[in-house]
Amino acid sequence: VDDATLPVLRGPGAGDLFQLLRDRQARTRADLALLTGQARSTVASRVDQLMASGLIVPVGEASSTGGRPALRFAFNPAARKLLAIDLGATHARLAVTDLDATVLAEREGSIDIVDGPDVVLPYLVELAQQLTHSLDAPPGDLVAAGIGLPAPVEQATGRPMMPPIMPGWDGVDVAGPLCEALGVPVVVDNDVNLMALGEHTRAWPETSHLLFVKVATGIGSGIISAGQLSRGAQGAAGDIGHIAVPGSQTPCHCGNIGCLEVNASGRALARRLSALGYPAHDSADVVALVRGGNLEANQVVRQAGREIGGVLAACVSLLNPSLIVIGGALSLAGEHLVAGIREAVYSRSLPLAAQHLRIATSRTGSQAGIFGASALAAAQVLSVEAVDRLIRAG
Amino acid sequence: VDDATLPVLRGPGAGDLFQLLRDRQARTRADLALLTGQARSTVASRVDQLMASGLIVPVGEASSTGGRPALRFAFNPAARKLLAIDLGATHARLAVTDLDATVLAEREGSIDIVDGPDVVLPYLVELAQQLTHSLDAPPGDLVAAGIGLPAPVEQATGRPMMPPIMPGWDGVDVAGPLCEALGVPVVVDNDVNLMALGEHTRAWPETSHLLFVKVATGIGSGIISAGQLSRGAQGAAGDIGHIAVPGSQTPCHCGNIGCLEVNASGRALARRLSALGYPAHDSADVVALVRGGNLEANQVVRQAGREIGGVLAACVSLLNPSLIVIGGALSLAGEHLVAGIREAVYSRSLPLAAQHLRIATSRTGSQAGIFGASALAAAQVLSVEAVDRLIRAG
Repeated sequence: VDDATLPVLRGPGAGDLFQLLRDRQARTRADLALLTGQARSTVASRVDQLMASGLIVPVGEASSTGGRPALRFAFNPAARKLLAIDLGATHARLAVTDLDATVLAEREGSIDIVDGPDVVLPYLVELAQQLTHSLDAPPGDLVAAGIGLPAPVEQATGRPMMPPIMPGWDGVDVAGPLCEALGVPVVVDNDVNLMALGEHTRAWPETSHLLFVKVATGIGSGIISAGQLSRGAQGAAGDIGHIAVPGSQTPCHCGNIGCLEVNASGRALARRLSALGYPAHDSADVVALVRGGNLEANQVVRQAGREIGGVLAACVSLLNPSLIVIGGALSLAGEHLVAGIREAVYSRSLPLAAQHLRIATSRTGSQAGIFGASALAAAQVLSVEAVDRLIRAG
Repeated sequence: VDDATLPVLRGPGAGDLFQLLRDRQARTRADLALLTGQARSTVASRVDQLMASGLIVPVGEASSTGGRPALRFAFNPAARKLLAIDLGATHARLAVTDLDATVLAEREGSIDIVDGPDVVLPYLVELAQQLTHSLDAPPGDLVAAGIGLPAPVEQATGRPMMPPIMPGWDGVDVAGPLCEALGVPVVVDNDVNLMALGEHTRAWPETSHLLFVKVATGIGSGIISAGQLSRGAQGAAGDIGHIAVPGSQTPCHCGNIGCLEVNASGRALARRLSALGYPAHDSADVVALVRGGNLEANQVVRQAGREIGGVLAACVSLLNPSLIVIGGALSLAGEHLVAGIREAVYSRSLPLAAQHLRIATSRTGSQAGIFGASALAAAQVLSVEAVDRLIRAG
């Protein structure tokens, strides 16, 4: 281990104190002194620094036990703004959020990802600038951006790696041009990873072991383990679309047979229903048929649920999550999909893992990716070190 | 979040300073002052405290640049001793190690796990006491014990949960009686988790994403993700023995069909070879036949490798490890098993995950579990908080 990689040990500063307040609970200076073991005077000066930065604000007084009631302070998510970008094969969703992923303004554009970075990135910058200008925020108010890509992303560099549906993007620096145009740090991750992060952060913060499954044109997943996103060695963790469905012999474009995606994705179901004579081209058409009460569509979706469940049973054995969240466009088909998934997962999993396992549809829905991109950006600017830097910069 | 669960922030103390030295590199007081940003006088007093505890020792002088050469200090693994226990269905292996998992003395006994805790735990205590007495160490020298059980272990309580091969042990307090008899804290985990931890710590410390697969009477795995053991919500993560092998219709005792264990475990292979008329009752017999050049045994083992590889391909897609380590008794069958595994994993995995994936046999062999139990115990007594307590206790 090189010494340069070891963390420098510091006394607890404003950045550390701030982490205690990120849970949104309001606390007095005395509470904070008790929690930190620091002198009242030290705590008071850190609180002043954080107040000056705007990151914390007074939120009323503690109930008095005689004497002057003490002021209470809490994290102020409105202190700064973040840009969250959810980039898909054919869409770009952008949102400006506060530091707690609450959406303040959003904008959506149509793209074709195969046009490549030279076309798509400038368009993203244009949308982002329109969006931030529309907010009329003071300069310096936007402090970071997070972006999700439909590709494996190498964590160290933030670049898409061998992306199957993004020809022309392999190894491309996505953060660089955006950072230069927007003037803020930009963090990049896989879109389904960010959906998992968004769903975890906003809807299930207390659930430490969660698997988020996106069922849409393709099928992928994002893993929260011990409260953290698991990305794997190359950022490809959760890539379940080409796991073999037990018993399936359907050939897949990847060269293997029986892959989950070729059996149970929105595209596969649309193809199957289209062959039966129904007007189905994508996940939305499949959902529309299901909602219209079409029996064959119901059966096809339920069978897809069973096939997805067959693969998820293996994921349950390996990861032992306490929650599987089903998201993505096809999850709007509602109970038909989830019932099939439950059927296969519970019949195939070992009792210990199945006993405490819950399977639910996404609570954050189409916002999961935006919430996750915002949470990723927030982690970048609200870390101990980032807050210390902010305070030092005055 | 309850305030009681928030960590108290302290200034960096001896415990923090010690973490910097756990990498075994020798450093001067000046190095440590530079690394920590602390005053020389503070560092000097912490170094004195750690020297007095024995946890660090002087290891020679830094090369002089004129003036008096400075003393260098390093972690001293010999400062205390740990007890490591690897409990299987029919064996109990115990070792006393130093703080870096180097084995100083060991002892092995035969048990039958189904005799239950009332028989097995007192016997473990007896073996442990014989072992520690034989070392003639000063009182207080043994500071902690780690034990691996062939069962899912609930992390919060250290109790086996619904253990399939340990009737009579469900929910039993294993740590309590051992702790009382030995007078040291006892930490409990699943045996394959500890094999993964031992292999990671001793053989591949730089590999952050590793899957350790034990192929023996049963089949299980332990997951190292981002350098940490992944245990899952109920401590059952890595439980791959009952994942379905693609294409298999063999019924398993668990009630499902095609489980990995019923196809490819040492027990399954012994049964298959025995049906062909060979003298095979367990993994060791299978390994002996393979080593004796028996062609049918070679084929059976290679086919088991392919079936294990079929399941591991799904694990690779989900976890994206950079290393799969094959351990357990059947791994001694050498290249026949691993060749089958490689064949199936590489043909079935996506290029990005497969490209940087290495598949190797265990380097720590039958010691993996002991190394892991020792590492688990070491983590317990060498944490920042534990070292601070030790120093305060004088």
